[in-house]
Amino acid sequence: MTPQHHLPADIERTSLSIITAELDAMGLTPPPETAAVVKRVIHTTADFDYARNLRFTPGAVAAGVAALQAAAPIVTDTNMALSGITKPGLARLGGTALCYMADPEVAALAKANGTTRAVASMQRAAAEHPGAILAVGNAPTALLTIADLIETAGLRPALVIGVPVGFVNVVESKERLFAVCTAHGVPAIVAMGRKGGSNVAAAICNALVYSAAGMLDPTDRGWK
Amino acid sequence: MTPQHHLPADIERTSLSIITAELDAMGLTPPPETAAVVKRVIHTTADFDYARNLRFTPGAVAAGVAALQAAAPIVTDTNMALSGITKPGLARLGGTALCYMADPEVAALAKANGTTRAVASMQRAAAEHPGAILAVGNAPTALLTIADLIETAGLRPALVIGVPVGFVNVVESKERLFAVCTAHGVPAIVAMGRKGGSNVAAAICNALVYSAAGMLDPTDRGWK
Repeated sequence: MTPQHHLPADIERTSLSIITAELDAMGLTPPPETAAVVKRVIHTTADFDYARNLRFTPGAVAAGVAALQAAAPIVTDTNMALSGITKPGLARLGGTALCYMADPEVAALAKANGTTRAVASMQRAAAEHPGAILAVGNAPTALLTIADLIETAGLRPALVIGVPVGFVNVVESKERLFAVCTAHGVPAIVAMGRKGGSNVAAAICNALVYSAAGMLDPTDRGWK
Repeated sequence: MTPQHHLPADIERTSLSIITAELDAMGLTPPPETAAVVKRVIHTTADFDYARNLRFTPGAVAAGVAALQAAAPIVTDTNMALSGITKPGLARLGGTALCYMADPEVAALAKANGTTRAVASMQRAAAEHPGAILAVGNAPTALLTIADLIETAGLRPALVIGVPVGFVNVVESKERLFAVCTAHGVPAIVAMGRKGGSNVAAAICNALVYSAAGMLDPTDRGWK
């Protein structure tokens, strides 16, 4: 039997209902403030571990939503995350998203300083968009650069999304970023542990964009 | 203490060693043919479930590698997956990767036929590149379209990578695709169950591209 073809919006609404019901059954119902983010990450990964892994500084979601409503740009550490961020949602907000990884100046700067493009791209983001939402889905070095700039250079991004994935330096980089953000009052959303990725970074951005653009039903944080 | 900054290639080599050791410790050592794919997907997701979820038709990896060495194009169902495919690796092979999702003709065709852009984009891929590697990380409808075209229209792609993620129609679409590919001798790599995604589709493509380009150490399927 061939499964039926459905429309994407219907599928997404049904998917979020299933996720909500399964989270409830597991005793992992997220609080209203973070529900849209948690559910969208699970929607993107089908991995309920994120209901336990995602950590938020107090008010982080509201800070991200407010920044997007004030047209703060999103800067990502990969073109893949950039590619996954909803363009129609951003357009509703008059917002922008960008990534410096393919920028020739960033490559030159990384080479000159003996560092990585990920580090150089976040240095550039901090210089050009100090009040941006910084979304890191790949490079722990990018996250450490942000933590250093917050501690030593007074950087105050609107929000840091820290969800690199991996096995080397990743867990430590996320713990350090979360501690530094907490100490300096910088809003942060971090996936503790090894898991994360560009898709997770994009999903978190999209949950914030949809919330900021009034595209979600406030009762269940799924689609209107 | 600030974790040290490392070079990306070193991090990747170390990560693959960790993944290999943990797979061995869990009794999930993949066979040599599929090891590069399995390990790269785990590298991308930090999710060892893929050691159990990924299913391969016999010779699927070799078929994908041979197709890439013969410069078969990769067609993805999302621009995010396209964005994640290694451009330096493809360049070594003289290969190409493309995605029709943002193509205005595909949007018009979907509207005219009352279907989704995902379906229309795979119909277009089948018409223009019938011997391509088709990589589906998002849309189960794209996978069902491929299965239908294999069954009823004699489509014979070089390889189908079927790894959509989700909660509605996804599990069924992957089971149907794998059964149809098996019945018709079409090579397939599928992530059974709910998990998958554009990042997983790109990771599988990249494992094949790196293998085809001779960039992997054949003994441990990690980096040379």
